[in-house]
Amino acid sequence: MKNIRADKIAEMVGGELIGDPSMMISRMEDIDGAEEGDITFLVKGKDKVKLKKTNASAVLVPFEIEESQKTIIRVKSPYLASAIIHNYLLAKPFEAKGVHPSTSIDESADIPDEVSIDPFVVIGKNVRLGPRCHIGAGVTICADVIIGEDAVLHPNVTIESGSRIGDRVIIHAGTVVGSDGYGYAPDEKGCHIKRPQVGTVRIDNDVEIGANCCIDRATFGVTWIKSGTKIDNLVQIAHNVIVGENCLLVAQSAASGSTVFGRNVVMGGQAATKGHVTLGDGVMVAARGGITRNIEAGNIVGGFPALPIKEWTKAASVYGRVPEMRSELRRLTREVKALRKICESERKYQEGK
Amino acid sequence: MKNIRADKIAEMVGGELIGDPSMMISRMEDIDGAEEGDITFLVKGKDKVKLKKTNASAVLVPFEIEESQKTIIRVKSPYLASAIIHNYLLAKPFEAKGVHPSTSIDESADIPDEVSIDPFVVIGKNVRLGPRCHIGAGVTICADVIIGEDAVLHPNVTIESGSRIGDRVIIHAGTVVGSDGYGYAPDEKGCHIKRPQVGTVRIDNDVEIGANCCIDRATFGVTWIKSGTKIDNLVQIAHNVIVGENCLLVAQSAASGSTVFGRNVVMGGQAATKGHVTLGDGVMVAARGGITRNIEAGNIVGGFPALPIKEWTKAASVYGRVPEMRSELRRLTREVKALRKICESERKYQEGK
Amino acid sequence: MKNIRADKIAEMVGGELIGDPSMMISRMEDIDGAEEGDITFLVKGKDKVKLKKTNASAVLVPFEIEESQKTIIRVKSPYLASAIIHNYLLAKPFEAKGVHPSTSIDESADIPDEVSIDPFVVIGKNVRLGPRCHIGAGVTICADVIIGEDAVLHPNVTIESGSRIGDRVIIHAGTVVGSDGYGYAPDEKGCHIKRPQVGTVRIDNDVEIGANCCIDRATFGVTWIKSGTKIDNLVQIAHNVIVGENCLLVAQSAASGSTVFGRNVVMGGQAATKGHVTLGDGVMVAARGGITRNIEAGNIVGGFPALPIKEWTKAASVYGRVPEMRSELRRLTREVKALRKICESERKYQEGK
Repeated sequence: MKNIRADKIAEMVGGELIGDPSMMISRMEDIDGAEEGDITFLVKGKDKVKLKKTNASAVLVPFEIEESQKTIIRVKSPYLASAIIHNYLLAKPFEAKGVHPSTSIDESADIPDEVSIDPFVVIGKNVRLGPRCHIGAGVTICADVIIGEDAVLHPNVTIESGSRIGDRVIIHAGTVVGSDGYGYAPDEKGCHIKRPQVGTVRIDNDVEIGANCCIDRATFGVTWIKSGTKIDNLVQIAHNVIVGENCLLVAQSAASGSTVFGRNVVMGGQAATKGHVTLGDGVMVAARGGITRNIEAGNIVGGFPALPIKEWTKAASVYGRVPEMRSELRRLTREVKALRKICESERKYQEGK
Repeated sequence: MKNIRADKIAEMVGGELIGDPSMMISRMEDIDGAEEGDITFLVKGKDKVKLKKTNASAVLVPFEIEESQKTIIRVKSPYLASAIIHNYLLAKPFEAKGVHPSTSIDESADIPDEVSIDPFVVIGKNVRLGPRCHIGAGVTICADVIIGEDAVLHPNVTIESGSRIGDRVIIHAGTVVGSDGYGYAPDEKGCHIKRPQVGTVRIDNDVEIGANCCIDRATFGVTWIKSGTKIDNLVQIAHNVIVGENCLLVAQSAASGSTVFGRNVVMGGQAATKGHVTLGDGVMVAARGGITRNIEAGNIVGGFPALPIKEWTKAASVYGRVPEMRSELRRLTREVKALRKICESERKYQEGK
Repeated sequence: MKNIRADKIAEMVGGELIGDPSMMISRMEDIDGAEEGDITFLVKGKDKVKLKKTNASAVLVPFEIEESQKTIIRVKSPYLASAIIHNYLLAKPFEAKGVHPSTSIDESADIPDEVSIDPFVVIGKNVRLGPRCHIGAGVTICADVIIGEDAVLHPNVTIESGSRIGDRVIIHAGTVVGSDGYGYAPDEKGCHIKRPQVGTVRIDNDVEIGANCCIDRATFGVTWIKSGTKIDNLVQIAHNVIVGENCLLVAQSAASGSTVFGRNVVMGGQAATKGHVTLGDGVMVAARGGITRNIEAGNIVGGFPALPIKEWTKAASVYGRVPEMRSELRRLTREVKALRKICESERKYQEGK
């Protein structure tokens, strides 16, 4: 672990230091777990009671905190600043452990010297790895896969043939990239004839994919995850999906076949899309939202079928009232009927006079 | 890849060729990606503008297309025909790569000569493999499993003991067959006593199972996936489920314990069933439908709890209007109250006169 | 398999035997599959017709069954009693198969003699295994993991570094423990800066985890599954979640970041929680329930956002009626408008007189 002066930290995150500039910091912890010598962070000013209680020596705080008995570094986003500093403190040069002798690597594969390839990894024909990759135990990389620099594949990942994976991509354990898309043509007897899935998967730089996800290859062409997108666990990406830059796909969400996401789209947990829809830049789908048609850039939606988030929240909040609405409606129907009778009899009375 | 004459293609799919019967075709592509020499397909007549734009040399088209400057083959279902032709073009004899020396195969296992068994495969006691199986790297096949002919297991699949897997079954990477069913008996202290799961899994011919699925073994008896059923990624099949022939289970769907599906049932993405329900032949459950009771053959349902699809679609389409309905209902209640007062006072007035 | 006298069975489960006390039993089967010599169980008295039909020699029955031509053992919960007896019949001493020569085990790891470690297992630095563990083929256990006694890890499981796993824990195939939590801080350009995930996972005694689950490590601190909790397949447990003792998490359910579950919480299939909520002891969430705020101990809820189960069931049961309610509401609005006109004209008429 590195050591870094408090004033250097303030400089790195463009913050204002109040306190001891020469304090040496080597560890980031959360505000409850931090000990003396640690730096921590306070996300929201309203939690400032924690600032007094923490044992941390230095704290990244939002600008609304103006003073403290601790050394504080005032920043716009303590959450972001702490991530930057934490990464800095943990960063270390790549230690190439080389290729474990138990691996099975095709002789046609292009493997740089500076890699770590753990036991029981299988690497197929014509695979090309970039320098400083770490390939975890039990990973299988099939033929014709290309992986960029500094990629990390956790154990038991499967990369099917022909996939292209960019630099600094992280793929967590058990994830499958390049499985066949789900495509069948029904014949006249109701049998499902498999459509060959001859496309590939392309995953661009700085993508992170969680554990036990599935990214299907395209039927033709490419299933494409663009740079900076971060995918949680157990997410399903079907064939020919295109996910734009810097999207967030939360756990158990799903993009059906040929869905297109713009940049910075957010899919909440268990959210899903119908096939062949387009979500514009910055669209946010609330947890469990179900998208059945195109959503214009910038919209926030929820529910299934998805509505503008405010409409959905409002509708969801009165859902439990529908039975009493129904009772009231029936009562009103009866009452109106009774009133009509009265009115009609009045009228007749008037007319009869 | 094979070469095939256009008239031979027409013959194979019972189509009518208009154009050059002697054209040689070796590759299928989609209509946007096709190049000269390729065959492609146009699914819907209304997209016929693409027919002019494509670089393909031959196109499978629906009957409604009657002429083109390209060589066309008119068929009932271009989608089906293209799958048939594509499979034909890609088909090649099984190349037995034999058993990789790194594998761990119990000596009691019965492994034909004509197989491909990739590195780090583990095969337990009394396992029997059919000819022309391809077992991917890192697959574990536990004791007493029987696998038929021409089966393909992708990398890192786990087949637990006693499972029976038919001919031409394809199982994608990371899938688990034969994990314990989820069964516990609560004791008086609220602890959950595990019920032994002593049943097995049976998967019949021509089933395909996607990546990272779970097919649990039965508590007693068998969890059974019948022939021709196609399962997408991340699907859950609980203990003692029976899935009929030619069903489609889309990604992230789930069949709870002891569910019974008839033939040609379709479960949309994320759809699920309660335990112990029966879905008759041809039942279709829309994406995210939740089945809480038996559904008669031929019904199409959606929503949770599931309704006939038309009812559900209609209900879902007015869901966002419930808050305004509630407001209107309140207004009406007030107004009816006011009207009643007027009527009553009129009445009194009349009576008083 | 063991042999056991019927009267011994009755004694073990505190039941009352009616029939042949000396009958020898060696196998438990379900009531349909049982053969002569087997014991079986009848869960509900109302199914007593099955008692006549079964070929079993002895039957665990509820107290409401008072006599039978079979040997019966009357107990409070035949479901629980049968689980206890079945476990007894199947129990056998641990057979240590030792460490398979193909494994890759770091020399710093502490592995007792009495274990079974299957082929292609990878065990990292400083790992400690308890006695009588069974580690399935292709499992990877990363550095600094501690696993207790009698634990069973099925094939292709991944345990990431630093995880602590208790005694008698069972983890089914393909599950990932200790993958990075899903945490990013957005920068000013909309890029997502990864937050280092430096916490760990702790899984206490007698926990069982299904196949292809994901249990993320904490950002800081610990993600903690307490003793006796049973998790089904494809379940997502996010960073910093705490799951209390004896919870049940059914297939495809999800606990978002920092969720806290009390004891004996039940999450139905596909149920999910928002992050940072607390579910008190004994809370039950119906299948697909979505929890967006804290739920007090003992409550049963359903729907999304979750309502008390009775409210939700009632609301769900009239969901399909909303369109007709809307029509009726429109009709009433028109009618009330008409009535008002009549009333007003009456009034004017009266006033005019």
